[in-house]
This record gives sequence, C-alpha cells and structure tokens, in this order.
Amino acid sequence: MTTLDPKDGYAVLINTFRVAPERADQLLALLERATKETMCFRPGFVSANLHVSTDRTRVVNYVQWRSRIDFEKMLQDARARVHIQDATDIATSVDPIIYELCSNEQAKERS
Amino acid sequence: MTTLDPKDGYAVLINTFRVAPERADQLLALLERATKETMCFRPGFVSANLHVSTDRTRVVNYVQWRSRIDFEKMLQDARARVHIQDATDIATSVDPIIYELCSNEQAKERS
Repeated sequence: MTTLDPKDGYAVLINTFRVAPERADQLLALLERATKETMCFRPGFVSANLHVSTDRTRVVNYVQWRSRIDFEKMLQDARARVHIQDATDIATSVDPIIYELCSNEQAKERS
Repeated sequence: MTTLDPKDGYAVLINTFRVAPERADQLLALLERATKETMCFRPGFVSANLHVSTDRTRVVNYVQWRSRIDFEKMLQDARARVHIQDATDIATSVDPIIYELCSNEQAKERS
C-alpha cells in the first residue's frame, strides 16, 4: 500500500515524458542514474519514483521535494541541468508539473 | 517520505484531468467522494492519492490497483461508471494511463 501523506506538505513533481517505445529503457536508465548520482544529494530531495506505461510510450517520474523552492534551486544546478537536457533529448516531449497532495484513501472492507 | 515499492507489482493508474481553475475544488470533492463511497470497496483497489497543480488547472489521481484486471473490472461497474462520467463532465479532458512502478530512490546524504 502507499503511505503518501498530505500532512508531509511536499511539493510533488509529476514529470511525464513521451518517448518512442524502443527508447523507453534508455530513458529509464538515464533518469535512474541521474537520480542516484545527482538528484538524491540535492537539498530538499525526498524521493523519486520511476514509472513506465504498459505501451512504453510514456515515462512518469513522481518526485517528492520538501518545497517548491528546493525544486527550483535544483533547476539552477549545473549537473542537474545536464541530466535534464539529456532526458529531454531522448524524449519526444516533457511535461513537468508541480502538484500538492490533497488526500489519500486506502482500501476498505465493506462492514 | 514515500514508500512506493516496485516489488508490490501494482498496476498504477495515473489519471490526469485538465480543469478550469474555478472548478478544481468541485472536481477534487467529487473524486474524493467517489473514492470513499465506491472505489475503495472494489476488489483489488489499494489506494488513491489526489493532487492539484499549483495553478489549479490539473488534477492527478494516483491510484494503485492490485492488477490491471482489477482496474478493468472496476470500469464495468455501474456505480463506478456514474462517478467516472461525472468527473469527465467537470473536467475539460481526462487522460487515464496505466503504469508499472520501475524504481524508487530515497534521499541520501553525501558521505
């Protein structure tokens, strides 16, 4: 089960990449390396969660940041910018959007 | 921090709604009600996590299902279909995509 919690108050980046299916693995590997080598050491980074769609035409990175300010500071970092450019070059489009988590509901049994 | 875990093997629905900002709260309330009243009792439902973008033009529901088959069975449920139609009527577009979680990385301190 998830334990995403609105009380954490994180800025959630949901970054959707469109990609040619044959390049999905390459994009996933690049994003995973960028996270391990650079992003996870940035101040305010909390977690990154990489997803691929069933048809492999989309990759979503669900990234928690402590605040929007931390996310925006990362965008100024030279090494982070190289990774972002590399991912943008593999993808056919990139759509990074910052969200707030409003609610979380878990499964229930009917009583 | 997140505790999303690829080993769970869930089918992850990331459903992105575009919405007029003044209707975002209405859409969030409807989706929350639909989850509490219907979805969270459906077989295979694990969790739903509602997000709104900073500019309130997008709502994302991040929903974990035990399997894609459970998700597809839900789509046949009459009450679920009413909720889906109601949400579609409020939104200007709906983009439900099924993903697999590939990796999860947490923050680290530089040693």
